[in-house]
Amino acid sequence: MKIAVVGLGRAGLPLAAVIADSGFEVIGIDVDAQKCELINKGVNPIPEEIGLDELLTKHGGKSLNATPRYEDASDCSMFIVIVPLFVDEDHNPDFSVLETALRAVGRILKKGDIVVLETTVPPRTTETRIKKWLEEESGLTFGEFLVAHSPERIMTGYSISRLKEFPKIIGGLDEESGKRAFEIYKKFVPNIHRVSSARVAEFIKLIEGCYRDVNIALANELFKIAGELGINFYEAREWANHEYCDIHLPSTGVGGHCIPLYPWFLIKELERMGKFGHARLLRTSREINDEMAEYWAEKIVLECLKVNKPLHEVKICVRGITYREGVKQLYESRNLVVAKRLMEKGLKVYVYDELVSEDEIEDMGLRFCKPEHADIVFDSFRLTTRIK
Amino acid sequence: MKIAVVGLGRAGLPLAAVIADSGFEVIGIDVDAQKCELINKGVNPIPEEIGLDELLTKHGGKSLNATPRYEDASDCSMFIVIVPLFVDEDHNPDFSVLETALRAVGRILKKGDIVVLETTVPPRTTETRIKKWLEEESGLTFGEFLVAHSPERIMTGYSISRLKEFPKIIGGLDEESGKRAFEIYKKFVPNIHRVSSARVAEFIKLIEGCYRDVNIALANELFKIAGELGINFYEAREWANHEYCDIHLPSTGVGGHCIPLYPWFLIKELERMGKFGHARLLRTSREINDEMAEYWAEKIVLECLKVNKPLHEVKICVRGITYREGVKQLYESRNLVVAKRLMEKGLKVYVYDELVSEDEIEDMGLRFCKPEHADIVFDSFRLTTRIK
Repeated sequence: MKIAVVGLGRAGLPLAAVIADSGFEVIGIDVDAQKCELINKGVNPIPEEIGLDELLTKHGGKSLNATPRYEDASDCSMFIVIVPLFVDEDHNPDFSVLETALRAVGRILKKGDIVVLETTVPPRTTETRIKKWLEEESGLTFGEFLVAHSPERIMTGYSISRLKEFPKIIGGLDEESGKRAFEIYKKFVPNIHRVSSARVAEFIKLIEGCYRDVNIALANELFKIAGELGINFYEAREWANHEYCDIHLPSTGVGGHCIPLYPWFLIKELERMGKFGHARLLRTSREINDEMAEYWAEKIVLECLKVNKPLHEVKICVRGITYREGVKQLYESRNLVVAKRLMEKGLKVYVYDELVSEDEIEDMGLRFCKPEHADIVFDSFRLTTRIK
Repeated sequence: MKIAVVGLGRAGLPLAAVIADSGFEVIGIDVDAQKCELINKGVNPIPEEIGLDELLTKHGGKSLNATPRYEDASDCSMFIVIVPLFVDEDHNPDFSVLETALRAVGRILKKGDIVVLETTVPPRTTETRIKKWLEEESGLTFGEFLVAHSPERIMTGYSISRLKEFPKIIGGLDEESGKRAFEIYKKFVPNIHRVSSARVAEFIKLIEGCYRDVNIALANELFKIAGELGINFYEAREWANHEYCDIHLPSTGVGGHCIPLYPWFLIKELERMGKFGHARLLRTSREINDEMAEYWAEKIVLECLKVNKPLHEVKICVRGITYREGVKQLYESRNLVVAKRLMEKGLKVYVYDELVSEDEIEDMGLRFCKPEHADIVFDSFRLTTRIK
């Protein structure tokens, strides 16, 4: 059986490589033709992904062939779609990338094929939009093809081991879809569990994200309260946490493609249903986390007052601008928002990041400086401010 | 050395017994003279407390002597205070019981004595009120006596094993207080850790409670959302939870002496400081948990419509009225609130609880019936409604 993986990004490429490594012939589809060429040469475009080098050397251009053309996958019988879903400024999901991918799959879909969505989506997306797009483009009726949802659960850097060890879930649009998708998936994802529906699978992924977001908001709230009470939050957290207590770490907020988006998928869906009070813990948590950038910007300004210079001459270095330490990704980076807030106030802001080069920083319209050349350094990951 | 334990309730009595069992002579002080007599005869007034029977048989009336008179403890050199602190209708702490106990201790306090507060209190209580009450009554100045805080971390039913195994923390009002209190405590609480101050110790206990309250609110919010989306919450929860995710269980709210009170200690303290937005996740969580009683009352009414009788004739049995399963305690019981909400609406409500007798139920102004004699049974602990 031949399997297509649509979307060769941080989630899709490791999955495609793992499927190839399990003995399947895989066609990887990605809009980026240059990336496809690299993959076919066995070159790994995500070097921080542990174990991916090895798999791509072994399978790239052999059992794993990457292509920007959907028609190259027309003889596949399973299509796994794992493309990004973003939200707009009002936090509404923007389905355009997903729709383009699904409609393209629809155009090469045959009777008996199975489509599995791995992209994390708002509740009921699989049973409404995904099904409709596929039916419209293929001319087939659901049942002639099957649909399931198995939300990706990777963590950049550890995706291969996650796919091999971490529990993964899959749910079908109907009994047959769930059963078939599960049978195939268990050949390359050993720890896969079937849940009762695609809708449950969607919900599972979203509530995991909500758990993280709410608990980070709680850590941020308690961190601020500790500050007001003159208490060292980290000391308190160390001894508060035990078997039944897991207070998270404070931060400049929550960044990246995942956690900050998922609560909105539920909040917005409930609002559409006219249930406005139903997601207010999720909404409050989003607010608290988003406000942390402003909180830190204010803290930094107050620290700048301790430097023996006029405020607008103090050279501030924000150290760490990626959304998470060790991952070169800036999407929804709240560390970047801290730097930008300070810049908007006319302060002299420079940035430094071990993963981002001086040129890349300047291309983003930011100024680079090494921490040792600044008057004051804010470490975004450690939440410390150091005056030179 | 002789140690006094003030307050022989669910937290104090197990502690007094454990201290006696570690070889100390203990004077237990409690306002309830009848309870004191029982203890001195070796009779256990908290039968559900595992291991307490044995300790009281061994030490009651021997190395552990209970008395309602503070003067019987005048030759003690450590005073551990573990009396209740409630909140009023506006969620403000009511210090009266604590003040009475501390002032009484103050009147027998001698130079060199040490007072340890175990009651969970709002931040800074130890360094302000406790110190003040002791100084005023004893005529001594802090330093002539020492003060520390070691918040109780028991769980009714498991208090003895908690004291023997669970990490416990202690912090002093000054260096000497912390050091001395720690040295003595470690003789009867093996897993004790010293933190930098009494204030940090107070905060640690409160944020543990906040973690629980917020996470129960999250579970309740997600449970309601799952209901709106036609999803079985328990199935989703089972697969959402893993190494990095610990979604709690939904409920009728949060009851008992502890968790529902502690967030208010922080919320109210921050409000007094004029920091109104600082505890809004805590406040939202309290609201969500408190509203669950109304949520369940509404659910039950809708279920009653399925019974083939006029609504006001449907015999409703609320099964489980204690605040937690297996603990005969009604303080802040949200299950009781569910029953009362239904009664206020003029419905025919009966209650049943395996731990509460028919007479006790009727003394509370409630009506008793066995579940099998009702038309509809709501199980407060399992959150299920069963129509006969």
